[in-house]
Formats: sequence, C-alpha cells, structure tokens
Amino acid sequence: MLPEWVVETLRKRGIELSMIGDIVYKLQKPYNADLKMEDCMESVKIVLGKREVQYVLCTGIALDELAEKKLLPQPLQSIMDCDESLYGVDETLALGITNVYGMIGLTSFGYLDKVKPGIIGELNNRKNGIHVFLDDLVAGLAAAASARIAHNDPKAKVYGE
Amino acid sequence: MLPEWVVETLRKRGIELSMIGDIVYKLQKPYNADLKMEDCMESVKIVLGKREVQYVLCTGIALDELAEKKLLPQPLQSIMDCDESLYGVDETLALGITNVYGMIGLTSFGYLDKVKPGIIGELNNRKNGIHVFLDDLVAGLAAAASARIAHNDPKAKVYGE
Amino acid sequence: MLPEWVVETLRKRGIELSMIGDIVYKLQKPYNADLKMEDCMESVKIVLGKREVQYVLCTGIALDELAEKKLLPQPLQSIMDCDESLYGVDETLALGITNVYGMIGLTSFGYLDKVKPGIIGELNNRKNGIHVFLDDLVAGLAAAASARIAHNDPKAKVYGE
Amino acid sequence: MLPEWVVETLRKRGIELSMIGDIVYKLQKPYNADLKMEDCMESVKIVLGKREVQYVLCTGIALDELAEKKLLPQPLQSIMDCDESLYGVDETLALGITNVYGMIGLTSFGYLDKVKPGIIGELNNRKNGIHVFLDDLVAGLAAAASARIAHNDPKAKVYGE
Repeated sequence: MLPEWVVETLRKRGIELSMIGDIVYKLQKPYNADLKMEDCMESVKIVLGKREVQYVLCTGIALDELAEKKLLPQPLQSIMDCDESLYGVDETLALGITNVYGMIGLTSFGYLDKVKPGIIGELNNRKNGIHVFLDDLVAGLAAAASARIAHNDPKAKVYGE
Repeated sequence: MLPEWVVETLRKRGIELSMIGDIVYKLQKPYNADLKMEDCMESVKIVLGKREVQYVLCTGIALDELAEKKLLPQPLQSIMDCDESLYGVDETLALGITNVYGMIGLTSFGYLDKVKPGIIGELNNRKNGIHVFLDDLVAGLAAAASARIAHNDPKAKVYGE
Repeated sequence: MLPEWVVETLRKRGIELSMIGDIVYKLQKPYNADLKMEDCMESVKIVLGKREVQYVLCTGIALDELAEKKLLPQPLQSIMDCDESLYGVDETLALGITNVYGMIGLTSFGYLDKVKPGIIGELNNRKNGIHVFLDDLVAGLAAAASARIAHNDPKAKVYGE
Repeated sequence: MLPEWVVETLRKRGIELSMIGDIVYKLQKPYNADLKMEDCMESVKIVLGKREVQYVLCTGIALDELAEKKLLPQPLQSIMDCDESLYGVDETLALGITNVYGMIGLTSFGYLDKVKPGIIGELNNRKNGIHVFLDDLVAGLAAAASARIAHNDPKAKVYGE
C-alpha cells in the first residue's frame, strides 16, 4: 500500500515519517486522551498510501529539487530562490493532500502552516537547500492524518448515538 | 458599498466590526510594523462590501437563528443543538468568504478557527444562543481582510522589483 | 451505513437514488465500457453513507424547505425566491460533497452544474417549490459517486503497473 | 499590469490570448447578448495581470517544459509522460487561478475541463510535446475571465435593485 519510493523521497529531503507522526500526536492528543503515537504513525502511513497524495508529494518535491539545481525557467527560479511570501502555489498544491479527509483537514493545515511546529518550522529556517514546497507538504500530510483520526474517533459527539 | 443591513445583522448577533478589526490587527501586525487599526477596519469593510461575502454571511447567520428558534428539520436541529465537532458545513461555508483573497486567506482561516482569538473564542464559549456558524464566519471575515492587507503590502518581497 | 432518513429526505424533495445513478452512469460509461448501472447505484449509496455528505445534504435541503415556508430572514428569503445567479452559496456547500473523492469530483461537479443533465435540469425548471440548493446537491452527489468509480477503475492508466 | 513575460510564456507554448478570449466569449454569450469579443479579451488580460495567477501559470508551464526535457525525477517523469488520468495535480493547481473570482469560476472550470472546447481540446490531442498542465491552466484562465464578466454584468438579477 505504501510504496518504498514514497518513504525514500521524503527521507532524501530530511523527513522521517516519525516527524510527521509527532505533529499529528501533538495536534490530536488534546481531543483524545487515549491516542497513542502508533495510531498517529498508522494514520500517516495510510494517508501516504493514497495515490493522489503521492502525486502531490512527488510534484512538490520535484519543484524544490529542480530549484536547488537552478533548472527552473525564469521567473519561477527567482521566485523560489527568494521564497516569495505571496507565491501561494505551495499552499494550493497541499490542498490536494488535505482535501482527502474533508474540511477538518483544511483548518488543521491552516493552523500548522502558520504555527509551524516541529519539523515544519525547522524546514522554514533551514539555511541549506530550497524547501518552498516541503514545509507545506508536511503540514498537509499531518493535517490529513489528524483529520482521519478525528473522523474515526468513536467518542466524537454524533447525533442519535 | 457596505449596506446597513450587513452591519446590523452582525450587531444583532453581538459582533461589532471593531472586534473583527482587532483580530486582523493582531494577525498582520507581526508582518507589517506600520499597520494601523484604521487600515484593518477599512479592510474589514471592503470585504463585507463584497456581494458573495454578504450572501455567505446572511446564510450562515440564518441557520444559527433558525436553530435557536428550533425551526430546523431533523436531524439538522439536533446536530446544531449539540454543535457536533465533525459537522464541517460551517467551515465549508466560510470558504466562500476566505476564497475571495486567495490561498493566503485559507491558511489564516485555519489558524483562526483553531486558536480562536478574541471574539471567536468568546462565541465558542457563549452559553446563550447557538453560534455554530457565526464563529467560522467571523474567522473567515478576519482571514479575508488579513489576506487583502498582505496582498497590498508594498513591502512584500516580489521578484524583480 | 446508509440511514433511512437520508433516502427519505431526498424522496420528499422528489429525488430517487436511481435518478442520481442515471447521471453517474452517463458520466462514466464513456470511460468504462464494462460499467453497470448497479455499480453506479452502489457508488451513490456509499457516498450517501458518509457522514460529512449527510451533513451537507440536510443543511442544503433545510434551506430550500425553509425558503418555501417563507421562514428565512431577509434578505436571504428574497435571494432564494428569485434564485439569484450570483448567490454561489449552493455551489460552495456542494463542495463539501465533491471534495470527498478529490479533484476529479470537483471538475465533474462543474460540468454537471453547467450542463444540468437528467433530474438536475428538471429541478432547475420546476415551477413548484424552491430548489436553489437541491440541484447542486444532486450534482455534487453524482460527481462524487463518479469520482469514486474513476478512482477504483482497475484499468486506469497508472505508472509502473 | 500585464508583464510581457506572461504573454511570451503562453505564446511559446502555442497559446495566443485570443484563443482564451474565444472560449470566454462562447461561454458567456448565451447569458449576455451585448457581450463583445473585446470585453472578453480585456477580462483575460485583467486575470493574467494578477500576481497569483502569474505564479500558477509559470509553475504549471515549467512542469510541462521540464517533462519534455526529461528533467523530472521519477516517478513524476513517467506520470507526466503517460498523462495519467488520476494525476489531478494539474486540476489542483488550476484552482489557484479559478478561485480568484469565486465559486462561479470553479464550476465553469469543471465544465471546460470536461468539454474541452477550442484550444483546450487541441492541446489534449496534440501529438508533440507534453501539455499535462497547459490545458488545465487555459481552462482555469478562461473560467476566471468568464466569472469576472458574470460578476460585473449590470443586468445580473440582484435582490433589492
């Protein structure tokens, strides 16, 4: 279900699945006292196993890598080099990941994108390499994995149950 | 541009435009040292002057009011009474507001929806009345007004300028 | 999985599941010669079995019904009475349905919303009652059910398979 | 407002602004008998003058060009080579364009993406080069330009006017 190239592609960019699991855990723990780190890791793996998520991931990471190699046409190369605050294509792309588990994923994504906890903040401050897309992709993955947990929580308040 | 009924509809639900302006100010000030409260108020008014924003606003507030009057059909009435955490239609509706200024608005909305600063948090804790939609609408308005300021910031890093 | 109230709520508004199944069949048949009507019906039922879809459905239909009973506050009542072309909240709401199966659902929704095949067009021309939301909800359901079929098509071209 | 590189980038990929204007004209003429081709061309130019639209455009076209040069990492290169039907990142990216004028743009985009009128269909059938993103970008531009015209139509039915 989760092809090896997905894990490898993230690893080459400095992302271990446990870093994403950590963010999911911190995000969902306040709502769910029984939540375990292994539930979060499983949720991250299921999200990464989805084909549309893999498509978004390899596209965004390709853009970061090509920017590092100075292979992008202008003005895109300059935009990526200076990490323009209004670029927005990175957030748009990440929607293709967060959408997978509905609107809850979208709001968590916005939160993570702003607060930048854990590895997301480190990526943002990293001096080496270009990570315009990677931080948004990681935020999108963590948001989707969190939304999946929220949807499956048997203690969620539901009418008539 | 900003019809009186829009201001009145918000006021009847306990929202003054300055409460939204406050959220915008706190959100944008860190990025823009010259920002003034009056810039934020102007941005809120321009967002509220847009027809599609007014449409979303009056629809969401109507649902809150009808829920208070117990006029909604089942199971919607029960869902609104217990403010189900997975409902999500309130967030979906608010997208119709945040979209107006692009993806930046979307991420700010997610942040505000999670952190619930100022009046958004008060609405969430208010014991009287039903405010399932109102807190998301206010977050959406503040996010859109913030995005508008960010887009117009003359000091935003832009390639080739 | 598919609660009785969902089927009943649609039926009261003149929608049988088979009408949605018909639209799905016509939409997907050109891409999939083996597709059977029963596959389409199953897909419609699975989409309708999702909680977030049910939430959107009962909210949109409640707004149509309340408009018929003249119970909406102004200016929303007038907007619904004249079916304003720029209202847009009906399309926004339907996104909460189409999003469930990703971007493919979104483009099919746009197509159905414009071409209005089958019951969608009939709803649009119906002289009795108010169906501002219902036609978009049905388009959203058909789009999501179609996207689900497309995602599960074993003959879809996929790299490395 | 509309930088020369935007027009040139499209031209190098075989797209003249008039081809986009043609699609807008055919899409909006049925709703607006007074519409002139020059109104459509003006709307296309205003959409192309927006910074967030330019960002999306140059990113999508860069991916097409890099795919032609076989410079993309795997599996993205193979996905683009065979134009996988479930890829979806092209549609996601185009949302960054259609969103600029709200939900109306979104439904028109879905329609154009399915029906593929004019140059959109030609791109889809072109034997030379890779145009995975370009057809969706053109559909997004035409949809946004159409939505802009619809929003500004003085004859649009609006309550209380």
